[in-house]
Amino acid sequence: MTAPGEAERIARAALTWVAEPGDPAMGALLSVCSPAEIVAALIEGRMPAADAAREDNGTPSDAPASVPRLERARRRWAARLGEVPPESALDGWRRDGIRLVIPGDAEWPSQLDVLDEARPWGLWVRGHADLRFACLRSVSVVGTRAATAYGAHVCGELAVTLAEAGWTIVSGGAYGIDGRAHQGALAVGGTTVAVLACGVDRDYPVGHCELFRSIREQGALVSEWPPGRMPTRHGFLVRNRVIAALSRGTVVVEAALRSGALNTARHAHDLGRPLMAVPGPVTSAQSAGCHEAIREWGAVCVTSARDVMRMLEFAADQPGGQDPARPQEPVLARDLLDPDSTRVLEAVPARGGKGPARIAITAGVDFDTVMRCLGGLAAAGFVERCDRGWRLRRPQPVSYAGPNA
Amino acid sequence: MTAPGEAERIARAALTWVAEPGDPAMGALLSVCSPAEIVAALIEGRMPAADAAREDNGTPSDAPASVPRLERARRRWAARLGEVPPESALDGWRRDGIRLVIPGDAEWPSQLDVLDEARPWGLWVRGHADLRFACLRSVSVVGTRAATAYGAHVCGELAVTLAEAGWTIVSGGAYGIDGRAHQGALAVGGTTVAVLACGVDRDYPVGHCELFRSIREQGALVSEWPPGRMPTRHGFLVRNRVIAALSRGTVVVEAALRSGALNTARHAHDLGRPLMAVPGPVTSAQSAGCHEAIREWGAVCVTSARDVMRMLEFAADQPGGQDPARPQEPVLARDLLDPDSTRVLEAVPARGGKGPARIAITAGVDFDTVMRCLGGLAAAGFVERCDRGWRLRRPQPVSYAGPNA
Repeated sequence: MTAPGEAERIARAALTWVAEPGDPAMGALLSVCSPAEIVAALIEGRMPAADAAREDNGTPSDAPASVPRLERARRRWAARLGEVPPESALDGWRRDGIRLVIPGDAEWPSQLDVLDEARPWGLWVRGHADLRFACLRSVSVVGTRAATAYGAHVCGELAVTLAEAGWTIVSGGAYGIDGRAHQGALAVGGTTVAVLACGVDRDYPVGHCELFRSIREQGALVSEWPPGRMPTRHGFLVRNRVIAALSRGTVVVEAALRSGALNTARHAHDLGRPLMAVPGPVTSAQSAGCHEAIREWGAVCVTSARDVMRMLEFAADQPGGQDPARPQEPVLARDLLDPDSTRVLEAVPARGGKGPARIAITAGVDFDTVMRCLGGLAAAGFVERCDRGWRLRRPQPVSYAGPNA
Repeated sequence: MTAPGEAERIARAALTWVAEPGDPAMGALLSVCSPAEIVAALIEGRMPAADAAREDNGTPSDAPASVPRLERARRRWAARLGEVPPESALDGWRRDGIRLVIPGDAEWPSQLDVLDEARPWGLWVRGHADLRFACLRSVSVVGTRAATAYGAHVCGELAVTLAEAGWTIVSGGAYGIDGRAHQGALAVGGTTVAVLACGVDRDYPVGHCELFRSIREQGALVSEWPPGRMPTRHGFLVRNRVIAALSRGTVVVEAALRSGALNTARHAHDLGRPLMAVPGPVTSAQSAGCHEAIREWGAVCVTSARDVMRMLEFAADQPGGQDPARPQEPVLARDLLDPDSTRVLEAVPARGGKGPARIAITAGVDFDTVMRCLGGLAAAGFVERCDRGWRLRRPQPVSYAGPNA
């Protein structure tokens, strides 16, 4: 697979404006024609690859119905073409640290490919972390906005310990459990990824403005929606599949019955990823969803970060598809590291430990680059923090040799 | 099977003095010879059925070792022969409402037979309830002595609702969860069974003196140890298998790691009975055992009496041995009811409802008898409480026809 070209990036950027994330008609279309073909057809006012799509739905009873459905979708998309900004806007956002990561990019988290036709057209990313590296050893920590003191406390403890052990926290950007999870990880220098249902340039909710700033510094804000977009109620639910698919497993800390967090849990469950839930008092409505997940969906009852890590590591040892770091395609080979990360990794000692400043001198790169690369290398399991700075982690992560390696 | 004779009852009574409950040597011996033979041999100072026992352990390497082991056991038992009271003592206890229920009795809870060689030699019972009837629809509710306010609250709610639905509560006699479970059930007129590790004439702990009096009125005190015996630490653990085996399932409300309640849970698990645990705050050491049972042993996470009943009824619907009310032998046929219960049952209306006083008149028995019989009939699922007194329960419990029916 060669890296995608600028034309594909521009086309996929346009798709994030014209089609709602998860739109099944667009997902089906993308499985038969390229983003550029689709955009070109929309601009020209014709049906993109109508023949291919009709063939795909080719049972006699389906075929007559599917064309009008596709035609309705085309009109819906075409009506939003006017919202797509000029190509030069991409450069403007890039200057603000906002980039569009698309399938095939080195930064693309290939574990999202399990979403098949519901795979995001692309991900708008804003933050210092490399999204793919950050999510290699990541766990989603989700829950209710209306967290109790108990839930907030447990969530904070969990995130701190997971982050200290080198796990990236993935969550939404909401008040309550989401916010607590990020704050806990950030407080100990951990990496966190917030998957938003609005543009990555929007501070929603506004009270998390400072939190989002910190996440940009130590991790990444991620969204399927283009810059400027405000969230919708439906968008949060659509977004949840990305939280579940990005991480190795999902922990529900507090959730009422029929809550959004349970929706994320459901996605994790359906994707075959380890699903965990923190129990709480049976007298608390905010724990009822956790108990239901444990009882009805087989979520593992976890009471500490140790339980969570044991579960994630156990799942990773299982044969089969439970481990997003072990899909059909390689997600990490040392050869695939970007040149800066390779240089930094070579400067990290196997024994003892070395501070970032000394690593910067040895590697011949600046301090900020060292900090950024160390975060990614830690998340990918190459290096670890120690008393005297940083050192190589052992055992080294397995390099999955594949067509790219 | 004919009802056991007085000689067997006297012999089994003697065994409760000479051999500790669960003593594997006695269990093995009882599988090859009768209680009367064993007692006679002990009195005569000879090895009971030594030949049979030797045959049973008949591998060449075992045989030489097993005889000295059996001989040590025989000496241990013979040394305690002097503690066995005269036969007339049985009549004295009977006047105090204390009876020895043994295998083959109509009151013997045949679900205990799954304990095989660890089956009690007999059960000392004190209380108005018929033990077999009471335990037909019973659930064990167990937990820590050091219950938190949370645990005590949840336990009380659980017991009240289960008792209102006609379930008998089985537990120990300790402070904390055990006591709360009994109190909850008693408060709504439910039936409870306390399985003690001391004589049923002993109020241990003494603070539960009033509670034990109420249990005798509305249920039964049960013990494998003879009257007068004080509890030992080891005795509580031995006793736990009886709590687990008597009931259809076990609920752990609060338990620390490595606690006695988890030992009961372990027995329920090993017997293949439904095991349930109530979750609690992960910050509470008294819930840690529950969470462990859920995570490691597959205990079902229950948050309400409804969950518990659903689980018990689900298990009863499964093919195979999960339902102690459906063992190889019949445990209940309407024909097997004692004459008083039969008369009371015939006096209970199918519709509407009738108070105990009117039932007493119709049945031609006294009020106390009606109250005792209604308790047993309710526990066995024949009758139920309603706004206007008592009525027949429908659907009627299945009568399992068998050799006795």
